[in-house]
Amino acid sequence: MDMTLLKENERVDYLIDQKIRVIQNTQGFCFSLDAVLLANFVQVKKDAVVCDLGTGTGAIPLILADRTKAANIEGLEIQEPMVDMARRSVLLNNLQDRIQIQQGDLKDAHSIYGSSRFDVVTANPPYMSGSFERKSITPEIAIAKHEILCTLQDVLLSASRIVKSRGRFAMVHRPQRLTDIVCQMRAVHLEPKRIRFVHPKKGTPANMVLIEAVKDGRMDVAVLDPLFVYEDSSTYTQDLLDIYAAKDER
Amino acid sequence: MDMTLLKENERVDYLIDQKIRVIQNTQGFCFSLDAVLLANFVQVKKDAVVCDLGTGTGAIPLILADRTKAANIEGLEIQEPMVDMARRSVLLNNLQDRIQIQQGDLKDAHSIYGSSRFDVVTANPPYMSGSFERKSITPEIAIAKHEILCTLQDVLLSASRIVKSRGRFAMVHRPQRLTDIVCQMRAVHLEPKRIRFVHPKKGTPANMVLIEAVKDGRMDVAVLDPLFVYEDSSTYTQDLLDIYAAKDER
Repeated sequence: MDMTLLKENERVDYLIDQKIRVIQNTQGFCFSLDAVLLANFVQVKKDAVVCDLGTGTGAIPLILADRTKAANIEGLEIQEPMVDMARRSVLLNNLQDRIQIQQGDLKDAHSIYGSSRFDVVTANPPYMSGSFERKSITPEIAIAKHEILCTLQDVLLSASRIVKSRGRFAMVHRPQRLTDIVCQMRAVHLEPKRIRFVHPKKGTPANMVLIEAVKDGRMDVAVLDPLFVYEDSSTYTQDLLDIYAAKDER
Repeated sequence: MDMTLLKENERVDYLIDQKIRVIQNTQGFCFSLDAVLLANFVQVKKDAVVCDLGTGTGAIPLILADRTKAANIEGLEIQEPMVDMARRSVLLNNLQDRIQIQQGDLKDAHSIYGSSRFDVVTANPPYMSGSFERKSITPEIAIAKHEILCTLQDVLLSASRIVKSRGRFAMVHRPQRLTDIVCQMRAVHLEPKRIRFVHPKKGTPANMVLIEAVKDGRMDVAVLDPLFVYEDSSTYTQDLLDIYAAKDER
């Protein structure tokens, strides 16, 4: 491995049977299970053109490049240090022919890429609305987790603008905001079609929701079988292990 | 048992450890699992005043009278033969002090009962929108299952009118219509607070959704642990058996 791609405080995390390598800053925002689940959930056809809004370390484009036969994947990220890290991860995985990382505000996505450009748009946006108090949090983490630079509405509006009619938009978010998500999606003509709730384990409420919408789609939602993350306090379920190892032959 | 309460083509079904008896017409619409699950799902406090919109055979009021300490339960039903059956079931269970069955259109509920009257409103409305084709179906069953005499919007608007501010509205419906349900609820100030999806068994999509909203409530939904109905093709899960036997001590 070319260690010259790593800077101070950075480490490399491995994904999908050790194949995909993601550079992360140990003091900054690190991608998590959410990104892995979203990249597994979204349906991407062969030769699709994909955009990941607020791509962070680029985990979603990196997984999608491995898992699917997407022709081209754009990652848009506003924070310069993360853009730099994501670009180096692309090089580390030798995926520069299929993934481009762009620095920019997702609210300008339609100016950057043009309208109705993508077959698939993904987003793992900040979950928490408004202000935050936690002193220990860095500005970089705060921006990734809180609606400081973009709101849910910004994300949905941008996604709706850059996705083709009948194209797909997939997002991971918190179930607490389900009503906002679903109603605001409909308001921008992203009609929810597939929803999967993620529960820490059996008998617990959902703590994550995966949702896929079709631009200008007909009303008809499928609520898929729930995903349980843990069998008990220390063992992952087989379903979750399968997702980590999954490869899409579509 | 007083068999004089039964008419031609009618049978008595037993519920909750053989305690509740519901008269049903073997040729007409019979209550089903949906009503049992809704009556178990909804949160009813001691001395609450409750209304069930489109009560049909009165299964929900009968179960709630047994399961909860509600002071008074109104059941509103448009179809005269079902009103008659529901009233006889109330007598059969000797619950005439706590349950009243009223004949009327749920769209007129606010004129019949007055606005902001109830602590809790429930509904197991027709699931299917618009027209229907099945020749074998009787008009009575069609009205109970299809949006012929009332739409989802009618049900939600009526519920919102007759429930108190901070009171609860609970409904059972099909997940396919989740976006309609959630967005239309919000439009009439019924904010979804608790959602439980019901799956036939593990690994299958949901085929029922239980949803409870609070009038003028704050946005914050809990998606509860999923309910699986069958363990395998012939055995109910323990969770479901517990619901059939449940009694609420709130």
